[in-house]
Amino acid sequence: MSFSFELLTEDKNSHARAGLIHTPHGDIPTPVFAPVGTQATVKTLTPADLDDLQATLILSNTYHLYLRPGADLIADFGGLHHFMQWPRPILTDSGGFQVFSLASLRDIDEDGVTFRSHLDGSTHRFTPESVIAIQEKLGADIIMTFDECPPPDDYHYNVESLERTHRWAERCQAAQRRSDQALYGIVQGGIFADLRARSAEFLTSLNFLGYGIGGLSVGETKSQMHAMLEVIHPILPRYKPRYLMGVGSPEDLFECVARGIDQFDCVLPTRIARNGAVLTPQGRLNLRNARFAPDKNPIEADCQCYTCRNFSLAYLRHLIIAKETLALRLATVHNLHFMLETMRRIRLSILDGTFNDYKNQFLALYQSVDEKEDGINSD
Amino acid sequence: MSFSFELLTEDKNSHARAGLIHTPHGDIPTPVFAPVGTQATVKTLTPADLDDLQATLILSNTYHLYLRPGADLIADFGGLHHFMQWPRPILTDSGGFQVFSLASLRDIDEDGVTFRSHLDGSTHRFTPESVIAIQEKLGADIIMTFDECPPPDDYHYNVESLERTHRWAERCQAAQRRSDQALYGIVQGGIFADLRARSAEFLTSLNFLGYGIGGLSVGETKSQMHAMLEVIHPILPRYKPRYLMGVGSPEDLFECVARGIDQFDCVLPTRIARNGAVLTPQGRLNLRNARFAPDKNPIEADCQCYTCRNFSLAYLRHLIIAKETLALRLATVHNLHFMLETMRRIRLSILDGTFNDYKNQFLALYQSVDEKEDGINSD
Repeated sequence: MSFSFELLTEDKNSHARAGLIHTPHGDIPTPVFAPVGTQATVKTLTPADLDDLQATLILSNTYHLYLRPGADLIADFGGLHHFMQWPRPILTDSGGFQVFSLASLRDIDEDGVTFRSHLDGSTHRFTPESVIAIQEKLGADIIMTFDECPPPDDYHYNVESLERTHRWAERCQAAQRRSDQALYGIVQGGIFADLRARSAEFLTSLNFLGYGIGGLSVGETKSQMHAMLEVIHPILPRYKPRYLMGVGSPEDLFECVARGIDQFDCVLPTRIARNGAVLTPQGRLNLRNARFAPDKNPIEADCQCYTCRNFSLAYLRHLIIAKETLALRLATVHNLHFMLETMRRIRLSILDGTFNDYKNQFLALYQSVDEKEDGINSD
Repeated sequence: MSFSFELLTEDKNSHARAGLIHTPHGDIPTPVFAPVGTQATVKTLTPADLDDLQATLILSNTYHLYLRPGADLIADFGGLHHFMQWPRPILTDSGGFQVFSLASLRDIDEDGVTFRSHLDGSTHRFTPESVIAIQEKLGADIIMTFDECPPPDDYHYNVESLERTHRWAERCQAAQRRSDQALYGIVQGGIFADLRARSAEFLTSLNFLGYGIGGLSVGETKSQMHAMLEVIHPILPRYKPRYLMGVGSPEDLFECVARGIDQFDCVLPTRIARNGAVLTPQGRLNLRNARFAPDKNPIEADCQCYTCRNFSLAYLRHLIIAKETLALRLATVHNLHFMLETMRRIRLSILDGTFNDYKNQFLALYQSVDEKEDGINSD
């Protein structure tokens, strides 16, 4: 197996860790933020753009690719790396989250889930075994167990669901045939400390190569999310990567790295870009704002992204107002640069022992917004 | 004046010419095809993309930029080159065509045209003097006289309109203040040989630095268009560039270069790209076609564009079907490469005396389509 996680440093004042994930398609310095490429493309960007941004890992979606263009087609191209021409590491999620958030008429039983496609209403069935088979056809470097994402605050339902998700995790592990993909188990348990602890313990006993933390950022509060991370931190194995799925915002990167997270993915930077919002150290800017009409400054004075090196706020606003799709691309480039560069700085600060200072300095300046309105869990 | 036209070669078997237009922002080898950047952006592309495509001239629209974001704003940025960050030559049309095709409730009098914006219905007025003032604020290298684009087949109206367009051309010339922009006069006259000849003679007498040919590709047949070009060919001055406005398709490049044209612009390659159609030496392909679903080939086997060097027809079709905007960008890159590369080959063939062979070979292979359905005159 060509996959391994190398833990380089642990922060003295927090649970922050810096490491390296080795994969068949290259190394991923951690902590890492993965741009989301739901349908085998990070929306508006080419692989060359992602390379310019120095992205080291991208996420794609099993549910979406299974429905369109189909896993067999992608397998026939030699897998997703070849199909989309992205030569670096890819992670596919298991489709669990999408089946429970996008598909309609779900019917869950012990064996799996029957659901209707959000595209055409056609009926499909996912089981732990079929989802592993699909992910083996897609050929990502990191693949995920099939899990249920239950409503986070119904204790009794979470107990029932968690037991099934655990049985599914074992079945996923047993179903794996390829040895060149790292399978991560997914910790569930809603907002309940005892369930999260039980899940982390059980999955640790299965000895996965990494651990996803699912079912967060779906309606619970930030402090509830942080509490769950604190519960599972001492339980999960020290020398395995920890991936907080579907998170996060700029402030989440700091708060969750401080609680031991190594991997993130989130549609936030790309999604808000397509709504004309851009990220800065002070918070978000809405490019539609009339005050930018004559503004000769870039989004961020010291930013080294292609957008900021070339274009004024006035030009970006003009493109947005004129409904030019180039606006969405230029905002996406900036927002991904912001997230990736922030994560690179976080990593350097962990390595040189200044993470806490950087975190305090960043969070003091950054004005956060309520992200619930963004619908950040669907791309 | 830093603008000049250098005639390098004239073809022996046709009226084809190869030359160089020198401008304050660099040289334009001719014949040249100019991608259209209506709203200060060639749709979906950055200036870096246009540079990769080796575009040497782009067109932008006075009417659109006057309405949004406004000529004063662009002037405050030092002109369009700075505003959109395109350092090479730009041509702005005069807005005449758009006023007569996009705006509503036009009221034409001797002095100018009052019209309602297609954006918000607000009332505006263009005169020859105001249009020159706007184009001086925008700061393109090549600017155009304000003309009327009448229906091409109403003789009496064309006579009346042509006289007024000629008086407007004189007024534009008199209104020009900047010495670093080349003002072209526009030959009109519909599909009437006597009017086209009269227009070419009159405008030649005004000694413009170049000549636009307007009011073609608006509903007349190809043979009517060719006949008009043949009428004016011997009248227009040999050592001035000739610009066929709003034309053309791949086959138009050959047929009109053969009739003495040095400059073209057309939304066709970019517009059809956004509908999922791509250009090949055999004709157009519709990327939505189900037969491309498993196709591992690029659009065109020997094409050196970024799209063809990297992506399969299957992947491009997937992006189109999945409504990913990256599809529009990748198709735009290919189509512009196709047009620009075809024009570069045309130029080389003129220089080495093989234009006629190349023209026959291209047209024998290329399956043309009726472009009327494309609505190719609006971007």
